Amino acid sequence: MNTLIVPELRELIASGDYDTLREFLADEHPAVIAEMISALHKDEVWAVLQYAEVDIRSEIYSHLDETLQVQIVKTLRRDEIVKLLTHMSPDDRADLFKHMPEELGESILPAMAHVEREDIRRLSSYEEGTAGAVMTSDYATLPPGLTAQQAIDHLRQVAPNKETIYYSYVIDEYRHILGFVSLKDLIVSHKDSLIDDIMNAEVITARVGDDQEDAARKIQKLDLIALPVLNEQDALVGIITHDDAIDIITQEHTEDMEKFMAISGSHEDAVYMKMTILNHFRNRAPWVVVLAIFGLFSGFIVQNFEGLLMQFAILSVFMPMLAGTGGNTGSQSATLVVRALALKEICARDTIRILSKELGIAFLLATLLGLLAYGRVIFFGAGSYIPPQYGLSQIAMAISIALGLQVISSTLIGALLPLGASRFKLDPALVAIPALTTIVDITGLVIYFTTVKLLLNI
Amino acid sequence: MNTLIVPELRELIASGDYDTLREFLADEHPAVIAEMISALHKDEVWAVLQYAEVDIRSEIYSHLDETLQVQIVKTLRRDEIVKLLTHMSPDDRADLFKHMPEELGESILPAMAHVEREDIRRLSSYEEGTAGAVMTSDYATLPPGLTAQQAIDHLRQVAPNKETIYYSYVIDEYRHILGFVSLKDLIVSHKDSLIDDIMNAEVITARVGDDQEDAARKIQKLDLIALPVLNEQDALVGIITHDDAIDIITQEHTEDMEKFMAISGSHEDAVYMKMTILNHFRNRAPWVVVLAIFGLFSGFIVQNFEGLLMQFAILSVFMPMLAGTGGNTGSQSATLVVRALALKEICARDTIRILSKELGIAFLLATLLGLLAYGRVIFFGAGSYIPPQYGLSQIAMAISIALGLQVISSTLIGALLPLGASRFKLDPALVAIPALTTIVDITGLVIYFTTVKLLLNI
Repeated sequence: MNTLIVPELRELIASGDYDTLREFLADEHPAVIAEMISALHKDEVWAVLQYAEVDIRSEIYSHLDETLQVQIVKTLRRDEIVKLLTHMSPDDRADLFKHMPEELGESILPAMAHVEREDIRRLSSYEEGTAGAVMTSDYATLPPGLTAQQAIDHLRQVAPNKETIYYSYVIDEYRHILGFVSLKDLIVSHKDSLIDDIMNAEVITARVGDDQEDAARKIQKLDLIALPVLNEQDALVGIITHDDAIDIITQEHTEDMEKFMAISGSHEDAVYMKMTILNHFRNRAPWVVVLAIFGLFSGFIVQNFEGLLMQFAILSVFMPMLAGTGGNTGSQSATLVVRALALKEICARDTIRILSKELGIAFLLATLLGLLAYGRVIFFGAGSYIPPQYGLSQIAMAISIALGLQVISSTLIGALLPLGASRFKLDPALVAIPALTTIVDITGLVIYFTTVKLLLNI
Repeated sequence: MNTLIVPELRELIASGDYDTLREFLADEHPAVIAEMISALHKDEVWAVLQYAEVDIRSEIYSHLDETLQVQIVKTLRRDEIVKLLTHMSPDDRADLFKHMPEELGESILPAMAHVEREDIRRLSSYEEGTAGAVMTSDYATLPPGLTAQQAIDHLRQVAPNKETIYYSYVIDEYRHILGFVSLKDLIVSHKDSLIDDIMNAEVITARVGDDQEDAARKIQKLDLIALPVLNEQDALVGIITHDDAIDIITQEHTEDMEKFMAISGSHEDAVYMKMTILNHFRNRAPWVVVLAIFGLFSGFIVQNFEGLLMQFAILSVFMPMLAGTGGNTGSQSATLVVRALALKEICARDTIRILSKELGIAFLLATLLGLLAYGRVIFFGAGSYIPPQYGLSQIAMAISIALGLQVISSTLIGALLPLGASRFKLDPALVAIPALTTIVDITGLVIYFTTVKLLLNI
């Protein structure tokens, strides 16, 4: 669809049919337009955007992905940038400001109105990933003592400049929150009721320094349209809206998944196709190299038991299965524990209960997979060389017991690592699956060779 | 915190201090209360809920997790259930109805009011996972021709029974949508303006049969508070609200992650700690067993090359590293492609562009890891037995070239499998990482042994 619209847009510009272009820009949803024009060259994007009304232009622009936003802004004149920024919502504006080259940002600020300048400085001062960095400063407040009708009249006047007027916060002179009222409450109340009586005094808030995901999860749990954000002095300084909460949760999930699969780097605006090969390489190489170095250990272990392997070639036949099964069962328990930790279903204090549950599951899996392995060795092991003093069933028993132990140990390791990370206030997803696989490779080989040696009396 | 409140709540019930209990139930947010009382025994949960006002009781109850909801409802009298259901929101009510035992549901329906009964029947008829199954029927509509003031007056009256009054849909006699107005638009308009002039005629909608995730992503993309849902006759039959969209997206994340890590089963209300060991086992065992059976192939390959391994014990030393590195690089590319597909950044048509990008990345990774492997064999391989006619550097070269080829092939396989799944309209996450690891284990062994044989002229 996006690629279909490209020639049409180019045609409109080339033929000078600006009326149709203006109509298109005014009628479609800004997010839809942004998606469509993203397929154009960056110079063409601006050529189209020029024909939109200033406020709609800024809104469409805000929906473009950040890399493209920065690319475009670099090609604009200073007055064009100022106009663009002035009509953007404060949070998107501060975000763009943070990501544009510093000199460019500093050269624009003096041309902005005082209020916006201060607003940009303040919002862009919060650290990436905090509630402060994602909040917007366009929220509606009410002084105490108004009637419902007066409050509605006030909201009517400020509405055009507010991200939402559905929630308003009643604040005192220090911007401390006294309560909050929804527009629904105001509408259904008698027009002479005092907002002090209508408002809800139990307001759930976030702090500027809170993790953005915690704030988003509050919005999710309490089904909020917006969550107010307080600074260190308990003063209201911004709100996070429901639509930002969805974006935060999606972004955090991408990050979790990538961390979990051992891909490093900031994923903030990492659109797959737009990242260069070199950047992809930079994000992927570190962990792969670290794990390859850790993989040295598995080499050492095999080297240590080389004599055993030369004697029982059949052992090397079942080595890949052992590593694979350990990796699979370990990554299952790790995945479930990481996800349950992320959704706050469990915490590090539950370690004992989780381990006993995993132990039960592991025993069942170990029995099943052990039986399977026994059958495999009996049916398919006949082709391998075995020293005459040992029977195939003896070896099958040793291998299947080793596999069972490997399943139990990797399931427990898979659950323990994220729980341990969480206990030390580290991100559980840091215990990436590839790292786990490397670890259970090593423990698995040790278990395998020692079990077999012990059971076969070598 | 939840466990701290448990003794206090028990104390309140035991001492008969029902006033404090009532106050607690009225003041805190229903979602917060639900979380707190979830730590109680299911009989105690109801003992507490009895003291809440009927509508708040239903709201708190809706925030309990589904398993607990069903457990509780089974212990209640019919009239208690009817009262509870009557005050629940239509979507939550239909959901509960679907999950309670069929006989119980059927025994309750006749006791419900006609309107609610029909509503439950209709909403619960949509297939799980569709937009129809998550929508609610409590939405606000307006007939055309009203003035802004008349519309506000109408909304004021219906407000108590609507999920949201912030968006209203202007519909004709066939419930076809003519447009939508936000309460903000109504408030800022002149009171005599006609809603036909205020309303936005370009309404973005979902169909009852649409995938729930697609509907939720529309809400996310367009920053909506609610998305209207149409039936096959284009009639408005429900809305999906922003808070449901967040829950859908979170649920889909969990499902994707679990599918991706080869954990089967429905994850709809699978709270980790509440699932029995046997259920966990049922979800995890199928894939692990299937993969273990597939793992047979890797055994066959090793068996095939047993002679080579007996001659060059050093090859088995580097076997685990080869499998591990292939699994790591393959799962990185698979993760990125699956995620980019889920976020609709790419589609199956981009296969060529994606593969050429991955090929570039794979070459860089292969060079880096190949060099690393060469160094490893040279430095640590000296301890292994090598037939006298071969030099260590010759073997090091063969192993590192094999590793490089393995990195390139597994990176491409990792990207290709989810793209292929998506081309055949299958869920890309179905190509789980453990399955991928098993596949690149097999291809890796073939690459390893054939490369070494060719390069060493065996």
